[in-house]
Amino acid sequence: VPTDRLTVAIDAMGGDRAPQEIVAGAVEAVTEVGVDVLLVGREDAMAAALPDGIPAGIELLPCTEVIEMDDDPAQGVRRKKDSSLVRCAEAVRDGRAAAMVSAGNTGGAMASALLRMGRIKGVNRPAIAAPIPTPGFTPTLLVDSGATVDCQPDWLAQFARMGSEYAALRYGIDKPRIGLLSNGEEPGKGDDLRKKTSALLADMPGFIGNVEGRDLMTDKVDVVVTDGFTGNVALKTLEGGLKAVVNLVLGVLFSDEYKAEGEKLLPALLEAAGPLQPDNTGGAMLLGVDGVCVISHGSSSARAIVNAVRVAADCARGGIVERMKEAIGNAG
Amino acid sequence: VPTDRLTVAIDAMGGDRAPQEIVAGAVEAVTEVGVDVLLVGREDAMAAALPDGIPAGIELLPCTEVIEMDDDPAQGVRRKKDSSLVRCAEAVRDGRAAAMVSAGNTGGAMASALLRMGRIKGVNRPAIAAPIPTPGFTPTLLVDSGATVDCQPDWLAQFARMGSEYAALRYGIDKPRIGLLSNGEEPGKGDDLRKKTSALLADMPGFIGNVEGRDLMTDKVDVVVTDGFTGNVALKTLEGGLKAVVNLVLGVLFSDEYKAEGEKLLPALLEAAGPLQPDNTGGAMLLGVDGVCVISHGSSSARAIVNAVRVAADCARGGIVERMKEAIGNAG
Repeated sequence: VPTDRLTVAIDAMGGDRAPQEIVAGAVEAVTEVGVDVLLVGREDAMAAALPDGIPAGIELLPCTEVIEMDDDPAQGVRRKKDSSLVRCAEAVRDGRAAAMVSAGNTGGAMASALLRMGRIKGVNRPAIAAPIPTPGFTPTLLVDSGATVDCQPDWLAQFARMGSEYAALRYGIDKPRIGLLSNGEEPGKGDDLRKKTSALLADMPGFIGNVEGRDLMTDKVDVVVTDGFTGNVALKTLEGGLKAVVNLVLGVLFSDEYKAEGEKLLPALLEAAGPLQPDNTGGAMLLGVDGVCVISHGSSSARAIVNAVRVAADCARGGIVERMKEAIGNAG
Repeated sequence: VPTDRLTVAIDAMGGDRAPQEIVAGAVEAVTEVGVDVLLVGREDAMAAALPDGIPAGIELLPCTEVIEMDDDPAQGVRRKKDSSLVRCAEAVRDGRAAAMVSAGNTGGAMASALLRMGRIKGVNRPAIAAPIPTPGFTPTLLVDSGATVDCQPDWLAQFARMGSEYAALRYGIDKPRIGLLSNGEEPGKGDDLRKKTSALLADMPGFIGNVEGRDLMTDKVDVVVTDGFTGNVALKTLEGGLKAVVNLVLGVLFSDEYKAEGEKLLPALLEAAGPLQPDNTGGAMLLGVDGVCVISHGSSSARAIVNAVRVAADCARGGIVERMKEAIGNAG
């Protein structure tokens, strides 16, 4: 056994395609990523998804409850103490796993991580770093994309520090470029929150000033800082926009008139659009908690889970939590 | 002269392609839309764009200044009293034109309209209603998409009333569906501003509750209400996302390998994408001012100007300002 072999806890019950796709992804991750997996979920559901028995590298942690997609996150964690999400977070807290991955209720994953692993000392509020695909370049990290909806300026400044540290580790960027999402590039632009945050970020290494929504999918910036409300709106707006255009293009490609050309072009277009597919981004990272928690999108396939496990393992091996502690501590 | 022939003031100096495209659009609008045009701009610039003389239906209003794209809007209006934007707004104020159209500095157009035409009595703050294309359906109006960045709950409630009235007039929607842009559909979702606004909108006819960014380009909702900061971020995020996907698709279509198919498909794809092109949306409307002010996008072509003039004329003929006054007055 190599010394760097670590264990990732996976929420087998989370996501629209759970448990089948999640369990399949867990099994693939063992060989592809080279980790052990602690699979957490209902015993019958996990057994049904593993008809040929439990493969090497997989350990089951049975639990009796599930925080459903429509459960209130905080209440869910409080009431469902034997849920897969809570048990995943406890496994990380107790050192039984080095990281957790879930495609389930995002708020539930966040609340489980916060309440079981705890916040890193000095962190005001957690933030979700979601990778925005930028074809041809490393993704842009949108921080916060939904964890903390009502923010204060110094919280956003902390999101910038945590996001920068994460971009450096995750994408190997030497000095990440940090932008503040605003309604114009000019220094004076923004609402009250942005104006105050801008003043706090002015002297931060890597800060390039205001950026706009149209910069998210470009190579202009590595980390885009915003409050969780605006970040979530931007993320979902992008999702809806991409879907609408893809539907338009597919409409032409599958039309009777252009069927022949469509059939020939479709594979090339799908390949080109690969980086845009959420299954390939590796999931979003919850920053500010005392443990590694990767959130994969709700309709995750096995492929999405493998990619999320890879990110989780990389971050655990890279000591992301220790680096966050230093980044926060150094900044006072 | 038919009694319904009205005059639209056009800022000949506003936009990246001014004055040529703007003037060309103004000339086309005279016949296509059936309006007279008061063309406002520098005399030499307008003369150069009209080498064959002044066509019937066009009147020139010479001015000496221009509020440039990088001018501060409020300062621009205060200092450049003889600018094309200020003169356009004065023409509407003085009854010389029934509406104004500009593709120039958006903040400058807004400030000119506000300071010269004035606010409608009872309106707290103005809002920009930007049409978000929804292929196959009437566009979704995003209100506010950038006029008022720091908002209070009752201002957003007023945006909803103004947006509803505008959707009814512009798209002939009997009872527009109004959604509050939030980070989740569930009633409790949102930041502090959203939660308070939601309570104010609860009893409003047509209010369907929270909507998400991914609903903007769908037929789920007619008017999406938000503060000008979030609205502007959403609008530009969409713009950037659409551009990125279009570039990906074009990359495949123009590749050596798929050149033949690409050449055959390109016209069909461009036609399908027509509704997404900003030149075709007819511009954004400034709601809450005592006059009709249509803002066309910065790189407007002649076609964009014609479409914006059509919207301006429709709104003037439909008595949009009177209807706003009633909508605001009735609601107290």
